[in-house]
Amino acid sequence: MNVARLFEPRSIAVVGASKTEGKIGHEAMANASSFDGPVYPVNPSADGSLFGEPFVASVGDVDDTVDLALCCVPAGVVPDVVAECGAAGVGGVVVYSGGFAEAGDEGAALQRRLVERAAAHDVAVLGPNTSGFVDPRRELYASFAGGVEQFRPGDVAIVAQSGGIAHQLAFGALREGRGVSAMVGLGNRANVGFEEVVAHFDADAGTDAIVLHVEGTDDGRALLETCRAAETPVVAYKVGREDVGAFAESHTGALTGDHALYTAGFHQYGVPTVESTTALFDAGTALAACPPPSGPNVGVVTAQAGPGIVVADLLQQRGATLPPLTDETRARVEAVLPGITYAGNPVDTGRPMPAFGDVVTAVAEDDHVDVVLVYELFEGALGFPTESLDGLADRVGKPVLFATEGPPDEMADDVAALREAGVPVFTTPERGAETAALLARYGEMTTEVSADV
Amino acid sequence: MNVARLFEPRSIAVVGASKTEGKIGHEAMANASSFDGPVYPVNPSADGSLFGEPFVASVGDVDDTVDLALCCVPAGVVPDVVAECGAAGVGGVVVYSGGFAEAGDEGAALQRRLVERAAAHDVAVLGPNTSGFVDPRRELYASFAGGVEQFRPGDVAIVAQSGGIAHQLAFGALREGRGVSAMVGLGNRANVGFEEVVAHFDADAGTDAIVLHVEGTDDGRALLETCRAAETPVVAYKVGREDVGAFAESHTGALTGDHALYTAGFHQYGVPTVESTTALFDAGTALAACPPPSGPNVGVVTAQAGPGIVVADLLQQRGATLPPLTDETRARVEAVLPGITYAGNPVDTGRPMPAFGDVVTAVAEDDHVDVVLVYELFEGALGFPTESLDGLADRVGKPVLFATEGPPDEMADDVAALREAGVPVFTTPERGAETAALLARYGEMTTEVSADV
Repeated sequence: MNVARLFEPRSIAVVGASKTEGKIGHEAMANASSFDGPVYPVNPSADGSLFGEPFVASVGDVDDTVDLALCCVPAGVVPDVVAECGAAGVGGVVVYSGGFAEAGDEGAALQRRLVERAAAHDVAVLGPNTSGFVDPRRELYASFAGGVEQFRPGDVAIVAQSGGIAHQLAFGALREGRGVSAMVGLGNRANVGFEEVVAHFDADAGTDAIVLHVEGTDDGRALLETCRAAETPVVAYKVGREDVGAFAESHTGALTGDHALYTAGFHQYGVPTVESTTALFDAGTALAACPPPSGPNVGVVTAQAGPGIVVADLLQQRGATLPPLTDETRARVEAVLPGITYAGNPVDTGRPMPAFGDVVTAVAEDDHVDVVLVYELFEGALGFPTESLDGLADRVGKPVLFATEGPPDEMADDVAALREAGVPVFTTPERGAETAALLARYGEMTTEVSADV
Repeated sequence: MNVARLFEPRSIAVVGASKTEGKIGHEAMANASSFDGPVYPVNPSADGSLFGEPFVASVGDVDDTVDLALCCVPAGVVPDVVAECGAAGVGGVVVYSGGFAEAGDEGAALQRRLVERAAAHDVAVLGPNTSGFVDPRRELYASFAGGVEQFRPGDVAIVAQSGGIAHQLAFGALREGRGVSAMVGLGNRANVGFEEVVAHFDADAGTDAIVLHVEGTDDGRALLETCRAAETPVVAYKVGREDVGAFAESHTGALTGDHALYTAGFHQYGVPTVESTTALFDAGTALAACPPPSGPNVGVVTAQAGPGIVVADLLQQRGATLPPLTDETRARVEAVLPGITYAGNPVDTGRPMPAFGDVVTAVAEDDHVDVVLVYELFEGALGFPTESLDGLADRVGKPVLFATEGPPDEMADDVAALREAGVPVFTTPERGAETAALLARYGEMTTEVSADV
């Protein structure tokens, strides 16, 4: 199924657009109206206009080619609306309503009708039972949720089986000052599934990493093949380690399957996995920003020992290796900081200091190190070693991650400058360590896959 | 060792106070000068005044009883300064410098001298090798770190072996709009250890939960006995699941010991444990705000299925039980929401809706449920069910937790109102689930301990 007109429309129709605030047909129209192209509210029983656009009675009456229709009508009439859209030449439809495959036999039959109508007219259907998608770079807000117009453009694409998770991830990114290239909630995957969406954003020049939330899919192999074929790094979070089957099936009509099988499959196909939504987006942020790691060895530099120990502990729990540094690196570090607190790995400087950036550089240049993780509590008088870190990752060809904490307002500009310099910045030692460990696993995988060839 | 004058001083001296910005003697004086009581800068070689206070040559020259001295001098002279403080009648000293037990045989000998001098004069010594402590309720900032004057007063006391972790936790709380009753970094624990500090804040009327960060201690039993004796709930994070021994010993001179033994010990003594700094403070927040749970059964209400599944999955991974709801509760929920998306446990309403608070109330009143966890993405048109949740936890005698995400600025007032109503609010489904699982373990423990009696 071709999804180009769905995700990159030049024109939008909102079918079931409504003047009543709080209704999905109103909220979807409100969001869509930010789009820098024609947006047509469609409703046979409404007069006048909505957000400055005159109502049209049906999609067929729009005097334009409609690429994308946002379908805000009750489940029962969705198949007919999709057929109507198809007849009118619409390329993609987002179906928000629930009551399909997730809702018993009757719903499943309704979804089959929907799929047949879509197939007859070659219409790509996102959903049903989704809160939609957003592409902030295009000011394209095909979601009915409030506040999505605040999402910032970024380079990580969120592809979530659950619309709720898609929004949770994107709002979490917003809260932390990060952006997304796109956010997609798949819902019941009538005829647009993981494969279509991953392939689309793999080909998208502005997407540098894809993060997947997976509850379950009938065609796991197709998903895995698509991920392996992608040139863009993909990371996956498969829920359902414990039994959540009945609840999950009621959600998007999918069985969750065997968690261990999924995880093994992802790893075999070169896709690292994580175990939380937070780790998922953090991993995407790091994969998008950094050169790919070429092995599992993490070098840690910390300005405070306590968080450094937390980091070292968690890295090892997650299977990362903390190699001894080379003699040359140790000599460099000790030349910079005679009597340094701890010059193993982690290197601990005890406090932030002007030479901190030199220490990080020495560790980043160490041949034993594939991934660099820095932890430093912010001290206003010194700021961060942004100058040393700017361009360092690209120069050494390794990811360089930074985790920190401090007075939020005082440090905001310094955090922004670090990010501007291409360094992913995390709060809490654990998030830094989880992400470094993910990169270490990815580095190990990539090396193994290359070795196989 | 009595720590009352250390933590509740009426007067402060900063020994080694300095006019040079960036020096610890300057930063400590800058922070201390917020104190609403006399603060004396002490330095025999300085003239004039600092932050409006005239320099004094020695602590003995201060024409007042000094309760607390902040010791900002190099390690080598610390024992003499402590003796001098003791002779002058000082009750407590914070020693910031490192170079003691964490730094080899010579440092260990220096620390023994320090302890002897302190014992001779009955002086409580926090540190050495700590960044100090803060009590925002007293505007008492006995730390040299910048920005600590922004910490908000709250009801959770942070007691961390590492000053870096203490500050990381407190700055993290600040970033998320939460407060602390006090933040203490123990460092090398010359003669003020976990026992003294836990006992002190247990007796503190404004502290409703104590969170412990533990690297290792020689007297684990004393710590456990103190925790068991505390009426205030205590939760612990023991680092060192993996081998971080050499690095940790270089930090505060303590061996990390056997992680499994510590964990088993804590559980035996009624102290639930967590595995991250984030989970630690989240647990403290919940324990401080909520009535104690009386069992391990969690009832979950979610307005979006995706995050609900994540919650159900993680709760089970962490050993919590999701019991079936009573027939009465199911009937109540279905009366409120005919054709509800999923009325097992979790109860899933599919979207936020006006009746959401009624559903939460029904689950909270269910006899099978000991802990309630709610997840709801924010929708501006509806806000949160604050009215239903206000007083609910106290009325049903169970913790009620709330996790959410949404447009940060739009939801800020609603989050504040929920917290004002006594409901702990978390971001991400995982943090909600981790905290609910902690409460479930605590509920199970408490029940077992009661059953033993």
